[in-house]
Amino acid sequence: MFKLFYAVNTCALASHIALEEAGADYEIRPVDFSKNEQREPEYLKVNPKGRVPSLVTERGVLTETPAILAFVAQHFPEARLAPLEDAFAFARVQAFNSYLCSTVHVAHAHRVRGYRWVDDPAAIDAMQRKVPQNVGECFVLIEREMFKGPWVMGDTYTICDPYLFTLAQWLEDDGVDVARLPKIRGHRSRMSERVAVIDALADERR
Amino acid sequence: MFKLFYAVNTCALASHIALEEAGADYEIRPVDFSKNEQREPEYLKVNPKGRVPSLVTERGVLTETPAILAFVAQHFPEARLAPLEDAFAFARVQAFNSYLCSTVHVAHAHRVRGYRWVDDPAAIDAMQRKVPQNVGECFVLIEREMFKGPWVMGDTYTICDPYLFTLAQWLEDDGVDVARLPKIRGHRSRMSERVAVIDALADERR
Repeated sequence: MFKLFYAVNTCALASHIALEEAGADYEIRPVDFSKNEQREPEYLKVNPKGRVPSLVTERGVLTETPAILAFVAQHFPEARLAPLEDAFAFARVQAFNSYLCSTVHVAHAHRVRGYRWVDDPAAIDAMQRKVPQNVGECFVLIEREMFKGPWVMGDTYTICDPYLFTLAQWLEDDGVDVARLPKIRGHRSRMSERVAVIDALADERR
Repeated sequence: MFKLFYAVNTCALASHIALEEAGADYEIRPVDFSKNEQREPEYLKVNPKGRVPSLVTERGVLTETPAILAFVAQHFPEARLAPLEDAFAFARVQAFNSYLCSTVHVAHAHRVRGYRWVDDPAAIDAMQRKVPQNVGECFVLIEREMFKGPWVMGDTYTICDPYLFTLAQWLEDDGVDVARLPKIRGHRSRMSERVAVIDALADERR
């Protein structure tokens, strides 16, 4: 059985939804960021980076959302969560998820975790002021150039969808005007109706 | 034939080395950042993100280093650049590369591309001051927890190696004391002796 370490309102939700979509045998373990549990020695033994998600498998621990998502897709091929037989199409999936982790999530993190990159409080404020523009530009690019619809990659649901959905949860708090993102809003709404999403969100908030 | 858009001293080097290791039929096309060519309409048609690398294939364009690296490994299986038959081992490779793109490269980018996240010049200075510590901590973690040796994943060279090598090029300029990173230094040195690396570097600087 897999064990997924997560924290509420983090990108771990993407891996959680994917496990649920795959019908995986797994359990979830909360890491309480408000108590700084991610820096506790016990958790650092699981993931020395002190971040979530961490997926504990019988062969060891996996970290990093794009890697966990690709693993879930490959480990449960019958769930058809990625175009596994087509290296180019699979790379397109990976490119989208890589953009989310390296650019979109990072743009968002400058609002809530600016201390990662700067010590000066005035600089943290300056970072936060740019977040609405920065995250907004990322999502406009996704809306115009990347999102095919009704799912990210087109007609077929993939591991890009739970990841996009997860980051799109934060748009309003990031100060982005979602009125100009009709495709993203439509995607959020379609995702919200999926049983896997409803169950994953309910489990995390229990 | 593939076409790789790159700029000198960027992470595009990782994809370039991987193509060379794979024996791919490809050509490289420079994008001159000093002339801001990455924002020119012609290049934005290739990659609307205005970044490098971009790999043009007969089926379309791929972006994002971890995705391009995984594609090269899968497209040229005989080059054995990743454990393609083992989803868990492949996910470990992806997790390492994902950490490099989302955390290590981002930590570095706060020195040279701080304007991405902030407008205030004083805040950009404050960011730059934290880069030696931040990048240093990332590489200490790689040195202590992730790097197996002699290659990143152990005895077998993978797509993690050109990527780590590429980011390790910037350590001195980032103000990191490489004396405390003997494994990383050894890896740089082993990489520098590979024909693919020598050729890729020479091609980019021609």
